[in-house]
Amino acid sequence: MANEKKQVEQITDMEVDFAKWYTDVCKKAELIEYSSVKGFFILRPYGYAIWENIQTELDRRFKEAGHENVYMPMLIPESLLQKEADHVEGFAPECAWVTMGGSEELEEKMCVRPTSETLFCDHWSKVVQSWRDLPKLYNQWCSVLRWEKTTRPFLRHREFLWQEGHTLHATAEEAMAETEQQLEVYADLCENVLAMPVVRGVKTEKEKFAGAEYTYTIECMMHDTKALQSGTSHYFGDGFARAFNITYTDKNNQQVCPHQTSWGLSTRIIGGIIMTHGDNNGLVLPPRIAPIQVIVIPIAQHKAGVSERARELVERLKAAGIRVKADFSDNSPGWKFAEYEMKGVPLRIEIGPRDIENNQCVAVRRDNGEKLTVALEELEERVPQLLDVVHKGMFGKAKKNMETHTFTASTVEEVKEIIETKGGFVKTMWCGDTECELAMKERAGVSSRCIPFEQENLGDKCVVCDKPAKTMVYWGVAY
Amino acid sequence: MANEKKQVEQITDMEVDFAKWYTDVCKKAELIEYSSVKGFFILRPYGYAIWENIQTELDRRFKEAGHENVYMPMLIPESLLQKEADHVEGFAPECAWVTMGGSEELEEKMCVRPTSETLFCDHWSKVVQSWRDLPKLYNQWCSVLRWEKTTRPFLRHREFLWQEGHTLHATAEEAMAETEQQLEVYADLCENVLAMPVVRGVKTEKEKFAGAEYTYTIECMMHDTKALQSGTSHYFGDGFARAFNITYTDKNNQQVCPHQTSWGLSTRIIGGIIMTHGDNNGLVLPPRIAPIQVIVIPIAQHKAGVSERARELVERLKAAGIRVKADFSDNSPGWKFAEYEMKGVPLRIEIGPRDIENNQCVAVRRDNGEKLTVALEELEERVPQLLDVVHKGMFGKAKKNMETHTFTASTVEEVKEIIETKGGFVKTMWCGDTECELAMKERAGVSSRCIPFEQENLGDKCVVCDKPAKTMVYWGVAY
Repeated sequence: MANEKKQVEQITDMEVDFAKWYTDVCKKAELIEYSSVKGFFILRPYGYAIWENIQTELDRRFKEAGHENVYMPMLIPESLLQKEADHVEGFAPECAWVTMGGSEELEEKMCVRPTSETLFCDHWSKVVQSWRDLPKLYNQWCSVLRWEKTTRPFLRHREFLWQEGHTLHATAEEAMAETEQQLEVYADLCENVLAMPVVRGVKTEKEKFAGAEYTYTIECMMHDTKALQSGTSHYFGDGFARAFNITYTDKNNQQVCPHQTSWGLSTRIIGGIIMTHGDNNGLVLPPRIAPIQVIVIPIAQHKAGVSERARELVERLKAAGIRVKADFSDNSPGWKFAEYEMKGVPLRIEIGPRDIENNQCVAVRRDNGEKLTVALEELEERVPQLLDVVHKGMFGKAKKNMETHTFTASTVEEVKEIIETKGGFVKTMWCGDTECELAMKERAGVSSRCIPFEQENLGDKCVVCDKPAKTMVYWGVAY
Repeated sequence: MANEKKQVEQITDMEVDFAKWYTDVCKKAELIEYSSVKGFFILRPYGYAIWENIQTELDRRFKEAGHENVYMPMLIPESLLQKEADHVEGFAPECAWVTMGGSEELEEKMCVRPTSETLFCDHWSKVVQSWRDLPKLYNQWCSVLRWEKTTRPFLRHREFLWQEGHTLHATAEEAMAETEQQLEVYADLCENVLAMPVVRGVKTEKEKFAGAEYTYTIECMMHDTKALQSGTSHYFGDGFARAFNITYTDKNNQQVCPHQTSWGLSTRIIGGIIMTHGDNNGLVLPPRIAPIQVIVIPIAQHKAGVSERARELVERLKAAGIRVKADFSDNSPGWKFAEYEMKGVPLRIEIGPRDIENNQCVAVRRDNGEKLTVALEELEERVPQLLDVVHKGMFGKAKKNMETHTFTASTVEEVKEIIETKGGFVKTMWCGDTECELAMKERAGVSSRCIPFEQENLGDKCVVCDKPAKTMVYWGVAY
């Protein structure tokens, strides 16, 4: 039993040091490895498989809504990046610059894309002529570079994987509807696939994307009650189109500017999954994206019939569309339990001689440790049901964490006290001025997470300046 | 009818100027667009969809053979690239170098990966300890940069998409078997999915991958009889492992070096598809990767029942797992025929009032223009059969082109004459010396394509130097 103890001991207790617990889980569950390239991480097979499952879920939703995948150049000449003033100001400081090709100095330096608005716009300025060419509903799966000073697995890398959707529409209304629709795709992914409840809202002027008219966001609460911005969807109006001279001939034969959106979700969300659901035994993966949904562990596997029956279970579950594996290694069952708990496998199925006698197996939920007896003849029916129960259990637990850590306040001091003693999200009224937002950061240590779509009337004065309030805002400490 | 004429006229006749025909097809079929970034291309939705279908086919084969996807950093510090001497010599001259992060000069410049052997090795040197950690069977889907002087759609870009497989094995035998197995995966893809016959063989010393002990290749013949290297698989022995100090403890408790392979296939293959199968009406896509396998064109679509029946056909074919679309636009049927011929859709289905009366539709093969009548009740049965027939027809045509343009020669002058008058592949005996290979290039204008696995004894002397021959070689002019 020394082994399994060792396995578990190797991760820091989350109540002792959440940050350390987090990096321990990333490494011990073999999601990620540090690389010799400073600030860059390696996505190992288990971590990448989670991303692939997220990709499959998102890609299907994108395509069902008529989007098409494309691929744009990885490099952006400086002059192209500079075409939209706010955009270059936001991104240039964190660009990695290519200045040499082979042994020759480039005439113009190029950055490795931090995001690709400028490339899509440049392309559209050449291929869009008529209202018949609209809408353009594009998406790109790729990696991007942002030259961060400090890095952290999944949450902040100099390189990360993401998808960036870019769409161009004849009218502002259509583009706004797209912005909203795609935020809803992200919210659906989070809630119904990743079991992560979200707050939907709009970013403040200060927090919006560089070059956007407005940015929609979904904000999640991690187990330590800090916030994670999990997906954003931007409405650009015709700002980029004007900067890049994109026009089209409308049905009345007039030359007009189209309207644009972009939206992105990255491997950062995997950090969100870990910090929302994980516990002191390691990772807890939402069943709908878990690379292994069920691990079958034979008990007393050298006894007659055990391995055979375990293999049978695997084949039957595979045939039922479940991502399933069995572990027939020589490690002890206890060691295996700890191993697959660390890896967050949602359901463990144990089968031993006694179970076989009784025509049953034992299913153990990763999320709460509950043990259930499953009749072998009901396997294909019960296992998918149990995976759904685990999903709902995880969602419920995360939602409860968010609800019990969402507070209201009517003074800055109150916000500060709540954040320092309880953490979480604090809702207050706000006048809409960036100065008050900065003051809140300064005095209470929180940033605005979003102006939620679901507004409440908590009063009529701004919590900072006492001037008339415009909206209710969520504040919090963010990753 | 002016429109469809225009559509067809816009591409150059392939017999007049094959290179121009090729770029015309790439653009007119909307596969690719030139970008403002010199030497970089944009993969448009239709071109990217072909790549996605190739990815799906390959990824399934990789995973079935136990490979796992991972993601390594995009940047390689110069010192890491330099660790294997042959490798850096081969790749450094065509690297793009990042020298600045944000506004700061980097201490060490980093290249955007031209290939990732060095990163995989660096990672393995940290995580591989015991024979239990082997084999590592990894694959990565990504884009790479190579700073080419001249570029051409799909065939030569400064950036291209590819997969690079990297594997590490306990024994040389196992690694050699992997090298062979993965070449066979590429050959299977080409022949059974892309309808492109291949010659399998090993590259000469001169043509092998920088750092490899040997390189296996599949070579295809384009319609103009030039060669295209379509996929390569490299055996590294323990060269990289030694350079990167990768060792493991074997079952006898000895520290030993593992053996390594890598293998890659890129978007270049799409250029191969175009040049193998295309004709003067545009693209001809192999049915198994065509984004649209069947296009349904209603004839006299405003007549009662036509659109409804056309929609019905689409729904039935979709339900049967066919990638199908209908075109209900106001363009004339003739315009639509030309449009989808340009896009290479393998099968066109026409349905008009007369067809409906007779409970039938008309199927037209893209590869040879053959028209067939299909009873509506047999639709789900016949269409997949017809797609298979098209695949076989395309493969047979390409194979015939290769066979009728493969010659044997016993003097350099003969090789030269064949290449200049007929083109194609020329088989000769060869002594194995690089000098004779260079002489052949100099005097006959051909490079060695490969030493085929299927050897023939054409004589006992080298075609260049008359010394004893070691092997038979394929020569040709390559893209």
